[in-house]
Amino acid sequence: MSQSRFESLRDLLPADLFQDDDATLAAFESDGLTAFRCRPQGVVLPRTNEEVIRTVQWCHENSVPFVARGSGTSLSGGSMPVSDGIVISLNRLQKILSLDPDNRIAVVQPGVVNLQVSAAAAPHGLYYAPDPSSQKICTIGGNVAFNSGGAHCLKYGMTSNHVVGIQAITATGKLVEFGGQSVESIGPDWTGLFCGSEGLFGIALEITLRLLPKPEQFHTVLVGYHSLRDAGDAVSAVIESGLLPGAMEIMESLAIEAAEAATACGYPKDAEAVLIVELEGPREKLAAEQAQLESVIAGTNAFETVVAENAEQRDKIWAGRKSAFSAAGLLSPDFLVQDGVVPRKRLGEALERIQVISSASGLRVANVFHAGDGNLHPLILFDDSVPGELERAEACAGEILRLCIEMGGSITGEHGVGVEKRDFMPEMYDQPTMDLMHRLRHAFDPQQIANPGKMFPGTEAPALTAHGLHPLEKAGVISRE
Amino acid sequence: MSQSRFESLRDLLPADLFQDDDATLAAFESDGLTAFRCRPQGVVLPRTNEEVIRTVQWCHENSVPFVARGSGTSLSGGSMPVSDGIVISLNRLQKILSLDPDNRIAVVQPGVVNLQVSAAAAPHGLYYAPDPSSQKICTIGGNVAFNSGGAHCLKYGMTSNHVVGIQAITATGKLVEFGGQSVESIGPDWTGLFCGSEGLFGIALEITLRLLPKPEQFHTVLVGYHSLRDAGDAVSAVIESGLLPGAMEIMESLAIEAAEAATACGYPKDAEAVLIVELEGPREKLAAEQAQLESVIAGTNAFETVVAENAEQRDKIWAGRKSAFSAAGLLSPDFLVQDGVVPRKRLGEALERIQVISSASGLRVANVFHAGDGNLHPLILFDDSVPGELERAEACAGEILRLCIEMGGSITGEHGVGVEKRDFMPEMYDQPTMDLMHRLRHAFDPQQIANPGKMFPGTEAPALTAHGLHPLEKAGVISRE
Repeated sequence: MSQSRFESLRDLLPADLFQDDDATLAAFESDGLTAFRCRPQGVVLPRTNEEVIRTVQWCHENSVPFVARGSGTSLSGGSMPVSDGIVISLNRLQKILSLDPDNRIAVVQPGVVNLQVSAAAAPHGLYYAPDPSSQKICTIGGNVAFNSGGAHCLKYGMTSNHVVGIQAITATGKLVEFGGQSVESIGPDWTGLFCGSEGLFGIALEITLRLLPKPEQFHTVLVGYHSLRDAGDAVSAVIESGLLPGAMEIMESLAIEAAEAATACGYPKDAEAVLIVELEGPREKLAAEQAQLESVIAGTNAFETVVAENAEQRDKIWAGRKSAFSAAGLLSPDFLVQDGVVPRKRLGEALERIQVISSASGLRVANVFHAGDGNLHPLILFDDSVPGELERAEACAGEILRLCIEMGGSITGEHGVGVEKRDFMPEMYDQPTMDLMHRLRHAFDPQQIANPGKMFPGTEAPALTAHGLHPLEKAGVISRE
Repeated sequence: MSQSRFESLRDLLPADLFQDDDATLAAFESDGLTAFRCRPQGVVLPRTNEEVIRTVQWCHENSVPFVARGSGTSLSGGSMPVSDGIVISLNRLQKILSLDPDNRIAVVQPGVVNLQVSAAAAPHGLYYAPDPSSQKICTIGGNVAFNSGGAHCLKYGMTSNHVVGIQAITATGKLVEFGGQSVESIGPDWTGLFCGSEGLFGIALEITLRLLPKPEQFHTVLVGYHSLRDAGDAVSAVIESGLLPGAMEIMESLAIEAAEAATACGYPKDAEAVLIVELEGPREKLAAEQAQLESVIAGTNAFETVVAENAEQRDKIWAGRKSAFSAAGLLSPDFLVQDGVVPRKRLGEALERIQVISSASGLRVANVFHAGDGNLHPLILFDDSVPGELERAEACAGEILRLCIEMGGSITGEHGVGVEKRDFMPEMYDQPTMDLMHRLRHAFDPQQIANPGKMFPGTEAPALTAHGLHPLEKAGVISRE
């Protein structure tokens, strides 16, 4: 496309909204999946819904691909630009449009940061439940696009369980509205269809979120185990006791080491695995549950149990867990974060098999996971300066994903498919199902201009297991750092 | 279509699977929305998935409409046949294919009755949460098609919150599979899209359900009030206290009278409204919550409080509530059950406005509702033998639905759109949104042969508010009893 084509977009928008200088383009080249980058033709930074709509309509009329982006924290390359298209940056659309404490509903723009919703709701004793580790910077628009989870989705479910209505501009430039202010929707779950659509259907402009009453109190316990299996068994014991903790997380030794180095979180020394269990609720209820949890843990092989006595101690425990991904950088020059799901009861078996894969690959794997729902986050450590290590790490990641599929799980729990896992989709879904997904996408975006190249595999070879150049690199769409 | 066309379907199936004798056709003429009936060309009663698949593929190849049907309890005419098509009756597909207590998952066929799932799960201490009032006879396939709710969806959500995977045959005869065994799904919520699709996308053949641990104990309280507003205020007070009851139901005097006549449920005498609140959970937790609930109710204008002392007393309280719809028949020769949603906080206002509508129409309206989530079920009493009363009742129902829309609610909480409310869809959704819904339907069913005439309005005049003949009657598609 010639430069003059983008001039018509520039002319359509207020001055400075369309930018294509090198510095701006460089800032949008990659996202949380840092291994890859791609320079777009331009970036639009709208201040109003109207400007987003005008931009999308221009893209539709001119068949120009666009990628909507919030803070770019995607770990699957979901917000990576495309080389022949533009980025629509939504960070300026950061208003909480309304907050109705009586009906426990907030209507927000897509650029609102996750944690800001809870901050705004706090004076009313309310909060927004989904809590991805990146919640200090990630935006609600991105959370919707990837149906984000977080440590507390064991009890509260994913983003889609907390979005009751969406106003969106589709890839064909039409403004549509799904859902409302109630969890009881009409007909198919159109709102749920939009949640997790990874930007392929259009851009959410107004998102109606459900708020929950803030738990009166927390009871956070950190338990040390000498083996991963013991920690896994403890998770099963807690679930079988009938308790439903707000969160239940496991980190293994390598991840503990990283978190300790990053945040001095004071996790039990010599632990092969730590388990974090957090109960929450009204004071009286919690007292009863606390006693129950204590007796369940006493029945496991725990060698050390730390109970957070106050908010500060609770924050410290969580700081270790939430830093795990970034802290892995202290252990290794490079790492891949994986995201897969196995049936909860088969966690122990899955972790043993991941250890086998790790040994065979000669790469260390640090496991961190949402244990209550079987969502694994192996961190595969490697050194990109050693020839072949990235490829080995990708091969290792691929084997872990295939393991998840084989065990009846899933290739992603919360990070999404994005660029990273699109080639695994046909291993999860058969051809008629993939065909139907394509037809549904077509209903939103017949030109395939909304975030193209994500979620659906192309005709290229598998991405993660490819040795040498990534297929998108071969095609000149992206380049590696 | 000539009779010989159906002969090729008959030949395709084992003997006696295709039936078109008068007695069979008559049995399938109508569903829970008894005001209308329609005779199909034939009924297929498959015993295997393979026979369903073959039938749907035949329909696709021959462009013959089909309506899948379980027990036919739809209250919106959702399983009403079409005159130029066939009914596929799924009641023989009633196997629970697997039940995995460790992973708390059951895989069932569509003809399995709702309550049978809980019965099968009971020996493992588990149950299936969604509990429509018709749960003794309604089937899981129908629950999926209409995303059914029930008294306990306040705490547990609708059917879509409990279905984690679906294998379905689409209207184009393709076998597809969505979701899996985990709540963490990939990409858009395809499973949720299928839930609530009212049979327009195809037929679910295998449904993977989430099971929950049976609450250790229940605490069921029946509270009498002298005014509906007091009962409504009590609901708000309970919610604001931070308690999350499993269910919270209100019935007003006329509904109480009906329930009393039908089940001698012993509700407080002279109550203008009764509130049922049910807490559930482990014994210790319940003890704490019970005290909290007692003090909340003490702060309301309750004049009588009955606490169920045992399972028998609990069953008696629920028998009254669950009989309300059928019991209305004791008060009036005919009645319409409506289903709408208003924001919970505006319940009191909605009920007052319904009383105004009722007075103006000269018809009695008995209100029964899932108070915790603002889901109203007005029962509009009329006598079809009095000329004009049915039309007045339909007009009254239409006004109530418009009231729900105007108040920011919805035209259906759990009964679905079906035939009954399809003409209200454009009042809820604007044209671009309706267009998009049509395109999504087209992705599943380009020929529009799966349950045609439901959910989407045709070109006819509004259904419920039509005086004289229903538009489908004018078109000769259906006839009135």
